Amino acid sequence: MPSGSPYINFIPGPVTPPERVMKALSEPMPYHRGEEFSELYERIMELLKPLFGGDGDVLVLTGSSTAGMEAMVSGFVRRRRVAVIVDGKFGERLRDIASLYGEVVSVEARWGTTPSIEELESSLSRVETLLVVHNETSTGVEHDMNAISDIAMDRGVELLVDVVSSIGGVEVKAERWGAKALAAGVQKCIGAPPGIAPVMIMRWEGYRSAPYYLDLTRYREAAGKMNRETPFTPALPLFRALKEALLEVHEEGLALRYERHRRISEKLRRGLEDMGVKLFADPGELGSYSCTVTSFIIDDPESVRRELLKRGIRVAGGQGPLRGKILRAATMANVRERDVEALLFELENVLHST
Amino acid sequence: MPSGSPYINFIPGPVTPPERVMKALSEPMPYHRGEEFSELYERIMELLKPLFGGDGDVLVLTGSSTAGMEAMVSGFVRRRRVAVIVDGKFGERLRDIASLYGEVVSVEARWGTTPSIEELESSLSRVETLLVVHNETSTGVEHDMNAISDIAMDRGVELLVDVVSSIGGVEVKAERWGAKALAAGVQKCIGAPPGIAPVMIMRWEGYRSAPYYLDLTRYREAAGKMNRETPFTPALPLFRALKEALLEVHEEGLALRYERHRRISEKLRRGLEDMGVKLFADPGELGSYSCTVTSFIIDDPESVRRELLKRGIRVAGGQGPLRGKILRAATMANVRERDVEALLFELENVLHST
Repeated sequence: MPSGSPYINFIPGPVTPPERVMKALSEPMPYHRGEEFSELYERIMELLKPLFGGDGDVLVLTGSSTAGMEAMVSGFVRRRRVAVIVDGKFGERLRDIASLYGEVVSVEARWGTTPSIEELESSLSRVETLLVVHNETSTGVEHDMNAISDIAMDRGVELLVDVVSSIGGVEVKAERWGAKALAAGVQKCIGAPPGIAPVMIMRWEGYRSAPYYLDLTRYREAAGKMNRETPFTPALPLFRALKEALLEVHEEGLALRYERHRRISEKLRRGLEDMGVKLFADPGELGSYSCTVTSFIIDDPESVRRELLKRGIRVAGGQGPLRGKILRAATMANVRERDVEALLFELENVLHST
Repeated sequence: MPSGSPYINFIPGPVTPPERVMKALSEPMPYHRGEEFSELYERIMELLKPLFGGDGDVLVLTGSSTAGMEAMVSGFVRRRRVAVIVDGKFGERLRDIASLYGEVVSVEARWGTTPSIEELESSLSRVETLLVVHNETSTGVEHDMNAISDIAMDRGVELLVDVVSSIGGVEVKAERWGAKALAAGVQKCIGAPPGIAPVMIMRWEGYRSAPYYLDLTRYREAAGKMNRETPFTPALPLFRALKEALLEVHEEGLALRYERHRRISEKLRRGLEDMGVKLFADPGELGSYSCTVTSFIIDDPESVRRELLKRGIRVAGGQGPLRGKILRAATMANVRERDVEALLFELENVLHST
């Protein structure tokens, strides 16, 4: 059961963590250079690997998910030519970060859609690395990573993936995609509180210098000691909470959890369409509707958002150019069918009363 | 009362936070783009200003203290010549970070001592900016910031200060020192759990580009909105806990708190000397004994550390070249006289039994 929240939380992270996860925050903190922390960190690594779908090095930074993205991008992109798929806010962020370190080719598409296969293929002829956001939270589109990674692999282009809003809710396949590295989020489908950022490195070759705090080679060295440590003092309570959240993920079972995310997002989309609400996403050749966040077009979304809030339902507005145009409802982590039913019921009431 | 710790904690951070601070971690998280978080963030800003001793912009990053140091250093040091006082591990860290962005002149002294006034003066003739660690946690020396800042100001050299292990336990004087910016820690004398890093910027002129995640202009922009926000999802539970810790700091009162830190560290030093234990620090012209961490020379420090741990006392070993040479006992945040008495009593037992 989600704890303490006075409303049903459909914002695309931070989600409302289960009670046991929130309780873990207040437990006494382990000594950060001792055995107890080492065991905690190691357990987190083990529990995360199946979620990443690979057996690479798991490292956990203290920071927002963007810290993990930059730690990955800065080291692997420096002085290289890279392509970035940009069809939403987080694609833009990947591009902006990459631009600080390497030479960027944007593979752009209108927000809510995806580039064509042809556009992607032609961009990849000129680069060494491709950066892509698995699940574009700003638009509600999941990129077809099997297709995209096949195209990249065929051309010998390395792949860096932002799995911040998919991991734990949608299958991530580091191995199958041949990904070099992936950056995750804990506060979305994993259901932990925000503030730490796991990354998985499948292959280290070519990781050059990064900013001091974000240099993953420091994290690798500290994690490789007899006691698994972090190079800088970690956010100890958040590590404890992440472990609890991961235990809950595995207790549900990954296959069932992914299926649940698929099922409730489908229920939400169908319910919206049934009441005549138009979905915003138009996924195109290289995407599909996201199983973790659904965006829909609505008149005066800010008023509708406020009305829903009065009725105990919190959804999110659009970001950037989509502000004032769409609403977004996330079906992440512990959102259940009955929550989606409540959202649909209240939305229908709001739309008919205005 | 510190909560749940099975030993008296003398490591130089993370300290064991008071119970009310740990409890705040488990409270329901506020929406990170809403009024409740905005008020929380604003309250933290207000409560921190007197601890910084200035009325600059307070911004809080999610990350270890090193993230705040790099956010400050990267922006202000880029493409400049800077001097760094290096007489301990954290001076080295400042130097290493600064070296990624600007041209560094090291003002070195043997660890445990400080450079001479003459050495500092001559170094400053060639630079625009001086970087200094207020309280060098690795050696137990507090730099004489009044003297150092006077020397810098006389030469028109700007000052960036690491106050990570002093703030909340020793008076920090941003205004008096004419500091341009300061980077703080929450998990030392403030007594909060680790994972967020406050900085104070007194003057923004000359802040150039920083790494994406560490670019303080993004934090300034987000904090300047109608709702005070962070540019990236903040570690919400840690913000709640920091507020509680700061309330406790102010309830004790800053003057009394600084006096308590001075008094108990003096008691510790006197007690050590009374039993014939030699202090490691030899502060020199530009330093004094730290009021927040005391280092002392002892044979086989690792064995003594383990023996103390068996008796319910946790102290820290030396770092870098001081490993195996010294022990360190911090008197930070909520350490009390009776704790120092217990440490001295048990240390005497250990030394006489070996």
